Amino acid sequence: MTLRSRLLLALLPLLPGPVALGVTPVDPLPPQTRTAVSALAVKGVSTTRATEWVRRLTDEVGPRLAGSAGDRAAIAWGLALFRELGFSNVRAEEVPVTAWERGVETAAVVSPFPQELVVTALGGSVGTPGEGITAAVVEMKTLEALEEAVKADPDAVRGKIVFLNRRMARGRTGPGYGATVPARSSGAAKAGPHGALAVLVRSVGTSTSRFAHTGSTSYVPGGPRIPAAAVSHADADLLERLLARGPVTVKLVLGCRSLPPAVSANVLGEVPGRERPDEVVVVSCHLDSWDLGRGAVDDGAGCGIAIEAARLIARAPRRPLRTIRVVLFANEESGLAGGTGYAARHAAELPKHAGAFEADSGTGAPTGFSWSAAESLGPALAAVAELLGPLGAGTLRAGGHGGADISPMAFAGVPLFGLSQESGAYFDIHHTADDTFDKIEPASLDKGAAAFAAMAYAVADLPEIHARPAVPAAHGAR
Amino acid sequence: MTLRSRLLLALLPLLPGPVALGVTPVDPLPPQTRTAVSALAVKGVSTTRATEWVRRLTDEVGPRLAGSAGDRAAIAWGLALFRELGFSNVRAEEVPVTAWERGVETAAVVSPFPQELVVTALGGSVGTPGEGITAAVVEMKTLEALEEAVKADPDAVRGKIVFLNRRMARGRTGPGYGATVPARSSGAAKAGPHGALAVLVRSVGTSTSRFAHTGSTSYVPGGPRIPAAAVSHADADLLERLLARGPVTVKLVLGCRSLPPAVSANVLGEVPGRERPDEVVVVSCHLDSWDLGRGAVDDGAGCGIAIEAARLIARAPRRPLRTIRVVLFANEESGLAGGTGYAARHAAELPKHAGAFEADSGTGAPTGFSWSAAESLGPALAAVAELLGPLGAGTLRAGGHGGADISPMAFAGVPLFGLSQESGAYFDIHHTADDTFDKIEPASLDKGAAAFAAMAYAVADLPEIHARPAVPAAHGAR
Repeated sequence: MTLRSRLLLALLPLLPGPVALGVTPVDPLPPQTRTAVSALAVKGVSTTRATEWVRRLTDEVGPRLAGSAGDRAAIAWGLALFRELGFSNVRAEEVPVTAWERGVETAAVVSPFPQELVVTALGGSVGTPGEGITAAVVEMKTLEALEEAVKADPDAVRGKIVFLNRRMARGRTGPGYGATVPARSSGAAKAGPHGALAVLVRSVGTSTSRFAHTGSTSYVPGGPRIPAAAVSHADADLLERLLARGPVTVKLVLGCRSLPPAVSANVLGEVPGRERPDEVVVVSCHLDSWDLGRGAVDDGAGCGIAIEAARLIARAPRRPLRTIRVVLFANEESGLAGGTGYAARHAAELPKHAGAFEADSGTGAPTGFSWSAAESLGPALAAVAELLGPLGAGTLRAGGHGGADISPMAFAGVPLFGLSQESGAYFDIHHTADDTFDKIEPASLDKGAAAFAAMAYAVADLPEIHARPAVPAAHGAR
Repeated sequence: MTLRSRLLLALLPLLPGPVALGVTPVDPLPPQTRTAVSALAVKGVSTTRATEWVRRLTDEVGPRLAGSAGDRAAIAWGLALFRELGFSNVRAEEVPVTAWERGVETAAVVSPFPQELVVTALGGSVGTPGEGITAAVVEMKTLEALEEAVKADPDAVRGKIVFLNRRMARGRTGPGYGATVPARSSGAAKAGPHGALAVLVRSVGTSTSRFAHTGSTSYVPGGPRIPAAAVSHADADLLERLLARGPVTVKLVLGCRSLPPAVSANVLGEVPGRERPDEVVVVSCHLDSWDLGRGAVDDGAGCGIAIEAARLIARAPRRPLRTIRVVLFANEESGLAGGTGYAARHAAELPKHAGAFEADSGTGAPTGFSWSAAESLGPALAAVAELLGPLGAGTLRAGGHGGADISPMAFAGVPLFGLSQESGAYFDIHHTADDTFDKIEPASLDKGAAAFAAMAYAVADLPEIHARPAVPAAHGAR
C-alpha cells in the first residue's frame, strides 16, 4: 500500500460505523444468491488454484516494475492466462507510467571504521555522481525533528547526509507503517531544500534480516532532487551506535535514474453477468511489483486471490446478475497510474459499478472485509459474513478505501471492498529482495480466494446497487 | 565449523562413554576450587561484558576474512583489547594463510524465463571469465547421484553447470550440516573432472530468507578448477521448479580470485597461574569470519565468551593454579592455519596444557560441554556441571574434538572441551550477510561466559593434568 492510498483514506469522509445487525425477519440474500455464495465459501477449505497463479506469475515473469521489460511480460502473461481461463473481453487498457531503473547501489562507512552497509535506492530517487557522495552523517529521528533542527540552525543538514532513523514497530504498539513511511516518501523532499546532499532512511519495514526495504519517494516539483536510499535495520543500528560515539562519514553510490515515459496497462477479463452484463463488480489486485524480489506477496498473492475468485465464479452453476470484471492494475507501487487510469477511462460507467474489490495485503489468512457503501448494503454483507465465519473471514469493518487501485473510484460513490488479512509478517518482506514464492501460504490463499469470490458474487447478484452517498467534489481532487 | 573439523572428529579414536558419576565420598573439587567455580558460575545470571566484546569487534572491525584488511584490523583490535584488560604476555603469533577475495557475483536464468538469482561464491572458488559462463543446468541431488550419472553417461555433466540440490534440514530429522556440506566443500572437485563448467550448490544452511550461504570449497591438487557458488533457497527452489518443466540455461559471473599468500596471526593473552604459570589452559574462539556478514555469531559470539571468561577469571579473588591463555585463532573458516599453527609452534608445551576450550557454536544459550580427556577427570567435571545446572549448562557429553581450532591438539592428548549451545537458529544465518550484531542474545552470552569461566577455572585449578591416552601416530597425520 502506498502513502498515497493512506492519504486518500484520511481524505475520505467519515463513513457509518458498524451497522447494527440483528436477526432480520427477511433474508437479505435472495435464496439462489445464498446458495451460490455458500457453495463458493466452501471452496476455501479445499485446494484452489490461487497459489498456482502466484507461482506461475513469479516463476514465469518475476519482478515487474512499472514500465520495465518485466512489466510488459506480466501484461502478456495476464492476457494469456485470462484467455486460457476463458474469460470474456480480455484486453489491456494502456496507461502512461513514469519509468525508473535501479543500477548499482553501495554504501559504506568511511570513518571511524570502514564498514559496508546494505542499502537500496528508493523508487524514483535520482542517482549520485559516479564517484558517489561522501559526507558526514547527521541523524534525525523524524521529519519533525528535521524541521526543528533547521529552524534552530539553518545549516544543520547542509552538506551532510541526513539519516532518518525511526524504527517501524511490529504489531500494534509503537509507530507502524503509516507513522514511519513519511520519512521514506518525503525525506528527500524535506531535506533537500536545506542543503542536505542525500538521505538515508532506516528501512520502513519489520524485517529482522539484513534487507533494505525499498518504496517510492518523491520530490517537490521544482525543488532540489537529492538521492535517497533505505538502510537495512542491522546497518541502521550500526550507524546509530557509531553516531553515538562521534562523527561518522559515509560514502553513498547510487546508479538509479529515471527513464523516458513508458506505457503499461491494466489487464482486464470478464465473466459476463447473467442479466445485467453492463453492470459491473471489479475484483482486483495490482500486477506491478518492486524490482528487488519477485512480487510474490506484494501483490502476486492478491492476483492469485482475484484471478481465482473470478475463475470460481465463472465455474459456478449460476452466474451472478452482473458482470465480474477482474482487473490486474498497473503501477500501484510508483504512481497509481493503473487505478487513476481505470477510474478516468471508465468514468461514465462507474455508476453501473455495483462494487470494486481489491486484495493487496499479502499472503495471510483472510479475516473479513472492509467496506464503504450505502448503509443499506449492511444486512446483505452481514449475511455473507456469517457464511464466511467458518473460514475465519467473517469480520466486517465499515470504512476504508478498499485498496489503493480502486480508491479513485470512491469519488464516484462506487462501493469499495478490501480483503482484510492477517498481516503480522507482511512488513517483514514488504518491498525487499525476500519477496519470493516460498513465502506464500497456500491454505490462506485458498481461503482468501473463496471469501473474495463469495462476497463479490453476492454484491454482483443483489437486486440493487448500493452506491455510497455523493462525495463533495473537493474531496475528489487528486 | 569446517568440514575439516567434522572429519577430524570422525578420525578421533573412540573415547570412553559417559562416566558413571555416583556420589563420591570425597569432593573431587578442592574446597577453594569449588568456592571459586561457584562464584564464577553465578556471574551467568547477571550482565557480563561478553556482548560488549562482540559489539566492539563487529562495529569497529566488521568482516575479517583471513588475510584481508579486516583480518589485520581484528588482530590489532584483539591486541589492544587484551592490553586494555590487563592480560599478560599479549602477543600475536603469525601464521601464513591463503588469501582470496570475492568480487562481483551475479547469476541469472537466461531461459526459459529471465530471472535474477541470489548467489554467492564459495570461499576459495576460482572466478568465471569476465563475460561469465552461460550453459545448460543439470540437477543432481547429491554427490553420489553425480557419480552414478557419470558412470551411466560419461558426458552427463560435460559442458554444463551442475546444480547440487539437496536441502539441509533444520533440527534433528533429515540431512543436517554434516550430510549436506560435502556438496559445498567438494562439489566442484567432483564435477570438474567430468567436464562440468561450474557448480551451483543449494545453500548449506537453513535460512528462510533470500541469502546465499558461503563456506569453503576446495579442489583436487592438479585437477580442474571450476567456479562454484551457493544459491539461496528461494532461488534454488525456482531452479528446481523450472528444471521440472524442461531445459534451463543459466549465466554465472564470479569475480572471485585467489590472492598472493598472506600473513595472519593468532592473538594471545594470559592470566598467569598462581603456582604453575608454565602449565596452561587455553580458552579460545576464532577471530576470522567470512566476508559477507560481520562475523557476529560466527564467531564473534565465541570470542565474546572466551574473552569475558578470561576477564572474569582474572578478576577472581584467587587465580587458578595454572595460566589461563585466551587465544583468538586465525583462519578457522578457510584453512585452519591458526589452529594447526598453534599446535605446531607450541608442540613442546602441549604436555603442559591441562585443557583447551573453544566456543564456536553461535549465540545460543549454553547447555554444557563436550569433553575428551582421561576418564579420571570425569568426577571433577561432573561436580562443576552440577554447579552449572542452574544456568542450564550442566550437560556433559564425552567425546568430540572440542572445536576446529583446538582439534589439532588432540594428537598430543590435550584435554579438549567444547561449549555446547542451543543452536536451532545457528544455521539460519551461518556464513551469510545476515550474520550481524543484532542477532546476538546477550543473556545467553552471559551464561556462556560464566560457564566457560567456571569450567576452565576448575581444569586450571585441579592438582593433576588429565591428559588423554596417547593417540597412535597414524591418526595424527593431517
